[in-house]
Amino acid sequence: MTVVMLMRNTLESAKRFYNLSHVKAKIWKDSALPVSPKSPVPSDIQISRAQTPKPVSRLAKDIGLLPSEVDLYGKFKAKISLSVEQRLASCTNGSYVVVTGITPTPLGEGKSTTAVGLAQALCAHLGRNTFACLRQPSQGVTFGIKGGAAGGGYSQVIPMEEFNLHLTGDIHAITAANNLLAAAIDARMLHERNQTDESLYARLVPEIKGHREFAKCQLRRLQRLGITKTDPADLNPEEIRNFCRLDIDPKTITWQRVVDTNDRHLRKITIGLGDAENGHSRTAQYDIAVASELMAILALSSDLNDMKDRISRIVIGQNQGKPVTADDLGVVDALTVLLKDTLQPTLMQTVEGSPVFVHAGPFANIAHGNSSVVADRIALKLVGEEGFCVTEAGFGADIGMEKFFNIKCRTSGLIPNVVVIVASIRALKMHGGAPKVTPGQQLPCQYYEQNLELVENGFSNLGKQIGNARYFGVPVVVALNTFSSDTREELELVQRLCRVSGAFDAVICEHFSKGGAGAVKLGEAVIKASKLPNEFQFLYELELPLVEKIRVIAQKIYGAADITLSDHAEKVVKKYELLGLGNLPICMAKTHLSLSHNPDLKGAPKGFVLPIRDMRASVGGGFIYPLVGTISTMPGLPTRPCFVDIEIDPDTMQIDGLF
Amino acid sequence: MTVVMLMRNTLESAKRFYNLSHVKAKIWKDSALPVSPKSPVPSDIQISRAQTPKPVSRLAKDIGLLPSEVDLYGKFKAKISLSVEQRLASCTNGSYVVVTGITPTPLGEGKSTTAVGLAQALCAHLGRNTFACLRQPSQGVTFGIKGGAAGGGYSQVIPMEEFNLHLTGDIHAITAANNLLAAAIDARMLHERNQTDESLYARLVPEIKGHREFAKCQLRRLQRLGITKTDPADLNPEEIRNFCRLDIDPKTITWQRVVDTNDRHLRKITIGLGDAENGHSRTAQYDIAVASELMAILALSSDLNDMKDRISRIVIGQNQGKPVTADDLGVVDALTVLLKDTLQPTLMQTVEGSPVFVHAGPFANIAHGNSSVVADRIALKLVGEEGFCVTEAGFGADIGMEKFFNIKCRTSGLIPNVVVIVASIRALKMHGGAPKVTPGQQLPCQYYEQNLELVENGFSNLGKQIGNARYFGVPVVVALNTFSSDTREELELVQRLCRVSGAFDAVICEHFSKGGAGAVKLGEAVIKASKLPNEFQFLYELELPLVEKIRVIAQKIYGAADITLSDHAEKVVKKYELLGLGNLPICMAKTHLSLSHNPDLKGAPKGFVLPIRDMRASVGGGFIYPLVGTISTMPGLPTRPCFVDIEIDPDTMQIDGLF
Repeated sequence: MTVVMLMRNTLESAKRFYNLSHVKAKIWKDSALPVSPKSPVPSDIQISRAQTPKPVSRLAKDIGLLPSEVDLYGKFKAKISLSVEQRLASCTNGSYVVVTGITPTPLGEGKSTTAVGLAQALCAHLGRNTFACLRQPSQGVTFGIKGGAAGGGYSQVIPMEEFNLHLTGDIHAITAANNLLAAAIDARMLHERNQTDESLYARLVPEIKGHREFAKCQLRRLQRLGITKTDPADLNPEEIRNFCRLDIDPKTITWQRVVDTNDRHLRKITIGLGDAENGHSRTAQYDIAVASELMAILALSSDLNDMKDRISRIVIGQNQGKPVTADDLGVVDALTVLLKDTLQPTLMQTVEGSPVFVHAGPFANIAHGNSSVVADRIALKLVGEEGFCVTEAGFGADIGMEKFFNIKCRTSGLIPNVVVIVASIRALKMHGGAPKVTPGQQLPCQYYEQNLELVENGFSNLGKQIGNARYFGVPVVVALNTFSSDTREELELVQRLCRVSGAFDAVICEHFSKGGAGAVKLGEAVIKASKLPNEFQFLYELELPLVEKIRVIAQKIYGAADITLSDHAEKVVKKYELLGLGNLPICMAKTHLSLSHNPDLKGAPKGFVLPIRDMRASVGGGFIYPLVGTISTMPGLPTRPCFVDIEIDPDTMQIDGLF
Repeated sequence: MTVVMLMRNTLESAKRFYNLSHVKAKIWKDSALPVSPKSPVPSDIQISRAQTPKPVSRLAKDIGLLPSEVDLYGKFKAKISLSVEQRLASCTNGSYVVVTGITPTPLGEGKSTTAVGLAQALCAHLGRNTFACLRQPSQGVTFGIKGGAAGGGYSQVIPMEEFNLHLTGDIHAITAANNLLAAAIDARMLHERNQTDESLYARLVPEIKGHREFAKCQLRRLQRLGITKTDPADLNPEEIRNFCRLDIDPKTITWQRVVDTNDRHLRKITIGLGDAENGHSRTAQYDIAVASELMAILALSSDLNDMKDRISRIVIGQNQGKPVTADDLGVVDALTVLLKDTLQPTLMQTVEGSPVFVHAGPFANIAHGNSSVVADRIALKLVGEEGFCVTEAGFGADIGMEKFFNIKCRTSGLIPNVVVIVASIRALKMHGGAPKVTPGQQLPCQYYEQNLELVENGFSNLGKQIGNARYFGVPVVVALNTFSSDTREELELVQRLCRVSGAFDAVICEHFSKGGAGAVKLGEAVIKASKLPNEFQFLYELELPLVEKIRVIAQKIYGAADITLSDHAEKVVKKYELLGLGNLPICMAKTHLSLSHNPDLKGAPKGFVLPIRDMRASVGGGFIYPLVGTISTMPGLPTRPCFVDIEIDPDTMQIDGLF
């Protein structure tokens, strides 16, 4: 073994030298995987399977990561340590590009595909170090209607089945942590109802080997109660009562259980019907896990300290109008322990071998739906001054991009350089009046035949979304994601309209069928746009009253005439302002299928009044969460879910039907 | 890079040579990590943290695994490919040792600790290649009453926080797959109620680009219905109706949702109360995830083919008395895809550096509660002829061991060589009449003072469990897991009683405080016992009627006078025999705190009649599952759950309070 060990040491030294010199050089050489696109384009899973990815350990080395910063999860995924940001603190950030879209059809317009295609173009074809930062898909979606979210065609993340299934377990960890807190709430209420103050106190602060002491979280609760005593023997009966009883009013509980499955029968349930819990039943609900407060915390935390602080601020309900927090239940550290690894972004690669961070969750309609702050920060350092970080904001620019700017950038302090708005002829036709698009059913003929009138009518939506981006002072490049039935006239019409609507450029893209080579012009436009002077500004100041902030978003971004709040929402707004939450930014929960609250209103509707049905506070996430119209926080499964088409050959482990 | 690459190739060749020669030599050299036990014994997490584990890639190499067979999950965990078994098919298995216990106190008697201590003794002190095969702990337990399950003291798996939290995600994957099937059931029922046959058929078999075809799972359903047509256009209205309508009777649904959290308020719930689901509400329940049918399938499957077959056999409910299966819902491949990685056991190491497989789930009371067949098989090959695989069966020998023999060994075909029964003076005193043991509260004084009478009275339980093991014809070694308050007289009394009760040997062990060195005598006794002639036999033949099989277990193993079935259970038994399930083995769901169904009956109770309240069929797991007495399939959280004591320092990532 001596010779082997000697050789290993020499090799390690060589590797380290290579890494360090690499960080200085800053250009990722020999990193691309060549593709030879076929026509017609094979299925996503076939393309993914046909390309042999680099071992992620090699990819990590190629982009300047040290072995100690990389935790492998199998051969093609790795979690990356947050310490990278510190190591590269003195390096200049690359350019920051956010990819968003027009108001989509239910099929999506290829936003992830464009983010990946653009990254491939910049990295593998234009010699710029580039990271794509995507979000981990929800298994609800993967097995429900829309399928996976790895991009598509020759612009996707590989291996796509590893991207779409479990990944490195972040959503599972969030689900576990969320549901531990939920179980703790109901268990605590039951124990408080069944026990005297003395019995509760004896159990909460038990005598162990003749000794009795408060846990650290219990000392923090005493502090919040204004009790400065630290010896359990010293508390008087009233203090004991205040300490032991959270007295959570069940009607005020806002912490819900979550699951990452489209399980509509859990939208409204009654829990606690068992004999042993009898009398403690209450109405509750499940939300989809990726739209949970913990997912927002993961996406917006800057480090584990920040994450733990945010968890401790979570408000789960009220006791006579006073907030009851996760820390009152003593569960903050346990939740942080369950989530500690989730804060590290997952490194994967595109089909052309450029690096991708997969982190945080989707659903910009009912969540903020952006990839994580830490992934973007690390990526911006790794790509270096001449490089690019292409990050994705969910759904249309009215929701995902608005939240990207007003919530995510406000939190991170990062300033974006370019907005890419993805549009398709298909979506423009839908906005122009073509018949409804229904997943799983054939597209009406209008979508296959040239129709300049529908396209021109439908441009109202794209024009509005370009304007929305311009409110923030960031240059806009429109990416026209082409489908085989699009005609040259249709595409050129849209290009013209974009330029007169304030877009810096509008580029026809073929990255789905050609990979990065099909997005080279888009990449060139983005490089040019990134050099324009930056006039970034937020849409609203935090100091505005909550209702005013909601009104600004509704009027400026959605085009609403005004907003209206339900009586309940009015009350909740007052409550939140009383609790000192009035200065938080707004995360609207609104349909992604229209600029308005009504999914049937296409184009750029005007004159509507936006109804705010309810409000929630994501104090840990750091925003107020108005529910607009009938938006649901738990999707359902269709008659024929995607899972029907999935097949696996147990001998080869080969999967088909994932898309 | 050329020199580096050249060196890497040379290194890989050297590694490969080392690996291959290693497989032949079969002795794991230089593998042990030395420990220097401190007195008093520090906390489990302190011991875990004080030892630097070997990188799992090195551990894997040390025990003869090839790099291609190892998928790293971070630096100290790896999933191991099932292909190892094939590669080593021609090698002779090592000896197979099962570790079980007497009927435990609610604190546990150190069964995992003994399994680990014995493996450390055999591997690091007696020169025998040895694997310990443990089960992944439930986070319900970790955050509930009992804490983690990595063993304890100087006999534990490290890093213990990685063992106790998420591991490699198997339980999360099981939870996700289980709940996808549950959501599919309710969604399908809703769609069937809301739609005509024609509408259902149009959605289940949609026209895509002018073409209409059945999915493979739909063709299988047609086959089961006796319909041989394969063109969707050919079905007549009656066939369409039969094909589209599963007509699941909601009262017969036995597939429940699961969560790996002690959430007692989910024991009985009403689902489907939302407006959009109105009229489709029903009573349902959550079970703890580790006791699910999918966990049993994971534990008992021999490969992915077997796993997929088992999943396709899952019966979720009935349609007019006929079983409705997972395959009828079209979800078999999706579930297999979600579970494919779970079938690979996770490699970790003991505090002394010997290898451990962590696989499948605990809860031998409400599940079969044994580690997996594939982990044991791979371990038996890797250790080689002179080596040992020490596997753990949950709780007392009356449940975990009985199920190990009658279910797991029957499935695997493996023949065990030695049974190790773990006992403690503490548990014997409890069985002898000492006051109740309550977690979180101080032990009564009887447990700290010498009391030979209590010990001798309580021996009835250990004597009965020795007898139970002897029914199977396997030699028994009793491991007396010592606590600091045990006296020499108490321990020697038990040794004498064991030997006259049919145990091959009874050994005093100090592996908790001394590591493997404290279990060397146990290891020597196990080596001797493994050379005795093997007279292994099952307790019952599968051909016996279900009720008779239950009676045999109740009378022979538990000491019951007889069994009695509720009217409901009687009906279910008849139903199962009608459905052809009568030849399955039995997996009793019974309290682990007594040989009987009543947790208060200690020692070796006699004359009781065992009440069978209900029956379930785990057709995928391959057993019938009688529910005895009031056993619950979902634990609760106490007033002061373990999580209160957990602390994490976000700067150092150091965790305290996990145990």
